[in-house]
Amino acid sequence: MVESNSDEILRDAQSEDVAFLVVGDPFGATTHTDLVLRARELSIPIQAIPNASIMSAIGACGLQLYNFGQTVSMVFFLDNWRPASFYDRIKENRSIGLHTLVLLDIKVKEQSLENMARGRRIYEPPRYMTVGQCAQQMLEIEEEKKEGVYGPKSLAIGAARVGGRTEKFVAGTLQQLCDADGLLGPPLHSLVLLGSRAHELERDYARDFAMDKDVWDRAWSEQYGK
Amino acid sequence: MVESNSDEILRDAQSEDVAFLVVGDPFGATTHTDLVLRARELSIPIQAIPNASIMSAIGACGLQLYNFGQTVSMVFFLDNWRPASFYDRIKENRSIGLHTLVLLDIKVKEQSLENMARGRRIYEPPRYMTVGQCAQQMLEIEEEKKEGVYGPKSLAIGAARVGGRTEKFVAGTLQQLCDADGLLGPPLHSLVLLGSRAHELERDYARDFAMDKDVWDRAWSEQYGK
Repeated sequence: MVESNSDEILRDAQSEDVAFLVVGDPFGATTHTDLVLRARELSIPIQAIPNASIMSAIGACGLQLYNFGQTVSMVFFLDNWRPASFYDRIKENRSIGLHTLVLLDIKVKEQSLENMARGRRIYEPPRYMTVGQCAQQMLEIEEEKKEGVYGPKSLAIGAARVGGRTEKFVAGTLQQLCDADGLLGPPLHSLVLLGSRAHELERDYARDFAMDKDVWDRAWSEQYGK
Repeated sequence: MVESNSDEILRDAQSEDVAFLVVGDPFGATTHTDLVLRARELSIPIQAIPNASIMSAIGACGLQLYNFGQTVSMVFFLDNWRPASFYDRIKENRSIGLHTLVLLDIKVKEQSLENMARGRRIYEPPRYMTVGQCAQQMLEIEEEKKEGVYGPKSLAIGAARVGGRTEKFVAGTLQQLCDADGLLGPPLHSLVLLGSRAHELERDYARDFAMDKDVWDRAWSEQYGK
């Protein structure tokens, strides 16, 4: 993990060039900003090279990038831990009509409680949240909070392997997307919740990805483009 | 221009592979979405390859990408044409504490009125809006509208040639940035207006780019991180 190894990464950087490769854009995560701050403290000059990122590549779903509000993250809920800060952020975005990109949890290098307790470095298989799991958790929280930020009939687009050769988009209501994992296929997944200010060009583009075009058209005419 | 040449671009695409290269991410602009829609009508399969984009590369200024609201565009004002729709968009972003990326106008292949009238294909030299011009126009519109969306003391970051070897950031108040073009150097420029919910990590990172660290600290403590 970068967080715990930044000293190691920067150790020889005073005297030689050190390159650090990341997935996506280097400044998509706070972690890397922190690494630069540490380099500055040590007077180590840095140069960052931008890369394609889900933050911009998501435009391939047909929703215009300049109509997105803040990006939120969704983590795997546990029985006694269901962090819902995403809900208020989505509420803010929707209050001004904007789309929301939801980035989904990735669990790698997880240890079981037993292995952790015994100090065994045995890790569980990696887990990647799916669009179906995300849509389900979103609806659970709306059910709890009942502020009407979104609902089972709200339109969204599920995205899988964006930018890859097998990139796939599936559009539908949140209710429909709960069952879209089979259509979407393997990870990584992301989800975009439509903002009410969505434009007709966006509607037409995304409609092509709709699980059921009649459902899409009906939900659109009831709630969007106003 | 893509808008007028999409038929030409798609002409032979039924029978052979056609590649279309763009600056930045292909879906950063509505134009390219439109091109895909036309390809679909002709049943031409497409594959888009994502690229680094100012929409994500701007993270190098130290402000976190997930704290950005909608992106706005600023065009060159004319004596009788000062489109200010950006103002309401920024107002929305600021109402929920978010940063705003402002993309600056580029004028290429412009004709003088005389050359246009005479049908002469003679073009003016390209013009690229600078951070100074943008900050000036923003303050003019606030002066007109007086809704207090931002002001001369609001903090912002000017960005030049983002992602290039000579990338440069200059941070300061909008008033200061009116005179930052010399520091920033040649185009392309962009500007980011800070949201009130800016985090201390963002403050520290961007402070390094400040024209005057005392001014930066004072403006911050008065208006931000609350």
